[in-house]
Parts: sequence; C-alpha cells; structure tokens
Amino acid sequence: MQNMQKGKASIAFDHPPYITSAASVAGKKEGEGPLGPLFDVVEQDEMMGEKNWEAAESKFQKKAASLALEKGGLKPGDVRYLFAGDLLGQLIATSFGIMELEIPLFGLYGACSTMGESISLAAMTVEAGYADRSLAMVSSHFATAEKQFRFPLGYGNQRAYSATWTATGAGAVVIESSHPWTDGAGAAEPKALAKISGITTGRIVDFGLKDSTNMGAAMAPAAFHTIWQHFQDFDRSEKDYDKIITGDLGTIGQTILLDLLRKKGYDLAGNHMDCGIELFDSQSQDTHAGGSGCGCSAITLCSYILPKLQDGTWKRVLFVPTGALHSTVSYNEGESVPGIAHGVVLEHIG
Amino acid sequence: MQNMQKGKASIAFDHPPYITSAASVAGKKEGEGPLGPLFDVVEQDEMMGEKNWEAAESKFQKKAASLALEKGGLKPGDVRYLFAGDLLGQLIATSFGIMELEIPLFGLYGACSTMGESISLAAMTVEAGYADRSLAMVSSHFATAEKQFRFPLGYGNQRAYSATWTATGAGAVVIESSHPWTDGAGAAEPKALAKISGITTGRIVDFGLKDSTNMGAAMAPAAFHTIWQHFQDFDRSEKDYDKIITGDLGTIGQTILLDLLRKKGYDLAGNHMDCGIELFDSQSQDTHAGGSGCGCSAITLCSYILPKLQDGTWKRVLFVPTGALHSTVSYNEGESVPGIAHGVVLEHIG
Repeated sequence: MQNMQKGKASIAFDHPPYITSAASVAGKKEGEGPLGPLFDVVEQDEMMGEKNWEAAESKFQKKAASLALEKGGLKPGDVRYLFAGDLLGQLIATSFGIMELEIPLFGLYGACSTMGESISLAAMTVEAGYADRSLAMVSSHFATAEKQFRFPLGYGNQRAYSATWTATGAGAVVIESSHPWTDGAGAAEPKALAKISGITTGRIVDFGLKDSTNMGAAMAPAAFHTIWQHFQDFDRSEKDYDKIITGDLGTIGQTILLDLLRKKGYDLAGNHMDCGIELFDSQSQDTHAGGSGCGCSAITLCSYILPKLQDGTWKRVLFVPTGALHSTVSYNEGESVPGIAHGVVLEHIG
Repeated sequence: MQNMQKGKASIAFDHPPYITSAASVAGKKEGEGPLGPLFDVVEQDEMMGEKNWEAAESKFQKKAASLALEKGGLKPGDVRYLFAGDLLGQLIATSFGIMELEIPLFGLYGACSTMGESISLAAMTVEAGYADRSLAMVSSHFATAEKQFRFPLGYGNQRAYSATWTATGAGAVVIESSHPWTDGAGAAEPKALAKISGITTGRIVDFGLKDSTNMGAAMAPAAFHTIWQHFQDFDRSEKDYDKIITGDLGTIGQTILLDLLRKKGYDLAGNHMDCGIELFDSQSQDTHAGGSGCGCSAITLCSYILPKLQDGTWKRVLFVPTGALHSTVSYNEGESVPGIAHGVVLEHIG
C-alpha cells in the first residue's frame, strides 16, 4: 500500500473517500453576509437559548452533527469515528457538544486549520478500512473566541484594521468509504457531494511575526508552504485547480500568500479564494480584514464549496484551512504566532 | 480491509505496527520517585534554562523527540507524521516544542489521555501504509498545569486529598510499519520494543461529577467504559492480559474503576496498574492520590512498560491513558468534568 504516500507530506488515495453529507449552522451576522442564503441554518439567537457562550457553541456543534446525519439519512450509531475540535482551551465546545452522540472521539487542535485536519484524518481512516463512515466537525463562536483570546466584549475595544472577525458557526461532513460503489459491489451510488482524492499535511511555519491582531500575515507563510509542498508532491500547479481556497487569511494574508507563491513561479491571482473574504461583506459588516475561526472555512465548505463541486461548476479544488498557533499565554510571554495549514483535494464525482 | 474493524469501537491490526524506539524525559520530582532510575533523562532544572514554564515544557518535548529519534538511529526527516499534544490551551507546549523538527503535524487534545490518542492514530497511519514511520508524543509540566488549571504556585494553596500531582515530563515513541519485516521482504528485524496489535477508541463519558480536584473519580467511568468496550469488541477479559494499565486515575479512581468492572463480572484487582500510582511514592513525596498529566502515562510507558514487554516479562498489556475534559471556563460555569480514555493493546514480539 506504500503507493498512497506521495512526495514528502502528501497522500493520494487509491479509493478516494466520498463526502456524502454536509451541514452548516451559522450565526446571525454570518447569515447577513454574502453566503447567508446558502447555510442550512442561520441561528438568530447566538446564545442558542443557553446560559453562556461556550454552551451555545457546543449547541452549534450538536446541531451541525445532527443535521449532517439527518441529511444523510443516518443515526449517530452509523458513524464509527468522530474527528472534531474548536478554538477554546481544552476543546470544551467540542467536549460538551458531542457527548450525547456517543461516538468514539479523536479530539483535534489545529486552531482555524482544524477542518482540514479533521477531514484529513477522517478520510485516511475511511480509506484504510478502519471505518465505513466518519464525521469531521469543527466550530467557532465570535463571543467565546473574543473571551478566550482578546478582550471582554463589554470593553468595546477598538479592532485593528488587520484584525479578522471570528465566525460563529459549525460545519460537519460525513465521510464514507467509496469501496461499496467503486469496487463494483453493486451498491447504489450515493448522492455524494465530492470525493477526497488526496491530502497534504502541514507543518508548523513561523516567520517570527508577533502581532496577534494580524493573523492573516502570521498564517500566510504556512498556507504558502502547504500549497507549495502540495504542488511538489503531486507534480501540479495552480493550473490544475479551479480554485485554491484558504481558510481565513483575509485580505492582508491573501496579498502575502500571492506574493510568496509568485516568487516561486505560481500565479494564483486568478483562482485563489479565501473563505474569510467570502463570508462577510467587510465594508457593510465592519469585519475589517475578513472572517476567521475554524467555523469560517467549515461553514463555507459545507454551504458554498461542496455544492459547486457536486454540480460540476468546479471539477477540482484545493481546500487549505489555515491556523494561527498562539494563546494568550504565549502572546503575553512575547512569543511569535506560528501558523499551520492542512490541504485537502476535493473533486467532482463523475 | 474491513476485517480490521473489530466490534463497536476497536481495530485489530492485520500487520501490528512496531514501537521501535521510545524516550522519556522526566522532571526532578519524577526522578526522585520509584521509577526514577528508569528514565532516559531526569532534568534537575525544571525551567530547562528557559525564561518561563511553557518554554520549559516545549523543551521537554523537543528533548524527548530528539532522543527517541537518536535512540532509533533516525533523523527528523525519517519521520513522516507527528501526532502530538499537551494540556495547555491551544497546545502551545507542542507548537513551540516541535517546530524545528519540520515534520507534518496532527495536533491532538485528549487531556491526559492524549498518549493513547496519539499512539492510536500513529499506528493506524503506519499500518494503512500512509507512513513508514510516525512519532507519537505528549508532555505535561506541573507548573504550567497549575497555572492553566488551578492557582498561582505562589499562593501555596492547600491541595485536596483526592488531588493528583501533574507529572513533569515528555514521552515519545517511534512507530514503524512491520511490513518490511513480517512480509518476508528480507529486511533485518529491528530491535523493536513491542507491537501494537489493536486499539479501542474512547467516547466521552460523563457521570456528572463536578469536583475538578477529584479527577480520578471523574475519569474512572470513562476508563471503565473503554476497558469494558474493549473486552466486548475483542471477546476477551482481564485474564487475557498480564496488566491492564490506566493513565492517571490515582488511588480514588482505581477503587471506582475496580468496583465498576466488578459489577460487570470482571475482577481486575490482580492485574490492574495505574501509571499515576506508580510514578510517585505518595507518602514520602506528598502527591496525594497519585500522578497525572499526559506526561505521567507517557513517561511510565517509555521507561517501565515497554522494557517489560520487550524482555517478555509481560506478553500482552492494555494501555489506557485517561483524560478529564474540563477547563477553568467550563468549571467556573458550573459544568461537570467529563472523561475519555483510549485503549492500546501492546504485545511482546516473538
């Protein structure tokens, strides 16, 4: 089976697993943005009827998981493994969100890159035959993230132009083995949304930036490294993709990413897209450099990217959620903000 | 390949991956305990020459990884994936500890169960052929954990009798595919320490306990569930194991675990071992209910458990690191302390 290893940091799947169901549960502000009409659910109450924000974020996860299962005609018991995470210390949004599902859990932390990490591991697990079906899920919440990383909301602290706005929302995808369908076993082809043909796993990249209000700049080198590594490993370039989609670089990070890639001879100006830039209308919604948070790339994937792959508008995209690996402790101790980015190749089936 | 799935939550590996190298780097207090003489390194300076505790914990990881590679005659470039985590918010000990290795990273959070999670995923990845070699590593540090979860050390706060003492240390294991040796490809058999013949992945179990100074009690139900599930999935009992080894239940958690299992007809009194109980002499070292932290089970594994498997003293053990999934935020909001435990079957080779 060694032929699945590709280059230095990638896997090309022999039997690309399918994403057979996806659900996006978004907050009110996200619902008012350009992607608003596409979300499965827009919650008008960002407290979700709970007593605190963290419990609300947990409820976003619970709802996204339930909806992804429901849309796929599944029960929790049909899913063998759950790969999930969030931005909060000790992953409390996840721990309290998925308990009732009673699914074996691998808890993950890759900051805002976690949707890339969870899809990668869920796909590996399914393709290897360890599971017929896995669930990959992440969440973020504007209020829990501000409390975790920045200032109490009541301060009304002024935000830097380079700052991004943590998205409130949760996205979940069901990943299934394609063996029953592609091995000619006679099973009916599911209405799958896309196939996962490969992954490129990121390493930590640190250019020494220390400004945690400019996470786009901090993460751009990691996005660059993963995309560049992906091109080497698969012997491809930007021309092989309809879109190359980063997670939450925002406008400043995007400029840096395009510059870094241009120096290596790749011109992504024509087909780069950033979920953080798509999610909000930064002018009218005052979100500055764009959206962020693991929920940002997750709900954009589930509501906007997967449907375009399903209907064939896009044949192949590289989905690269990006994460900034800092905490208030590391920041206060004067450390830099290292980045990481995990790439997933998603393709139209057919 | 579907035959590798076993029961509801387990995998039995067709070609059990090998642990070919392991390293334990322990703190001063751990070095003074019963396992002291067994550690590869005992650091007398728990600051590791750094300016703060978090940087020190990162250095424990760096040292454990380097040493595990060195003992295996390897360079970082020989390892395809790193599965690592720690207890701190946003995994900063890991992020700043492993950066220089430049290995693709899957960041994990399972509280003190993370060594079980990292070994599980590293073994799955290797057995599926995605990697020839993976590294699984975790750390904890008494001072970073007290700062993260409890009171400033300077307060000299009195500790509850049920409290455990977070171990300072990092453990790392190199996991390699056994294909080159077991497929008769003629490669020389490595001096492997043990093989990983199966895993049972835990789910979140919450009995509603809210006392974060009694984590043993909070985690015991999760340990019980994983061990019980393991027995069902593999159609085994405690009689099939030389030792069943939990991570850090301590004396109180151990009593609860044995009681819960006894009610299901399993008597582990003769062969249960808890890393937290082994690590310290609770009388002379004033550690109360035992040791804890992801480092606790990791350094016990690398220094004490693996050698006993290598020399055949034990033929088969079930290693079950246990985690308490709370944070100060969830605690202060009145939430319970849910638990999780991940089981790994380790066997003597030969």
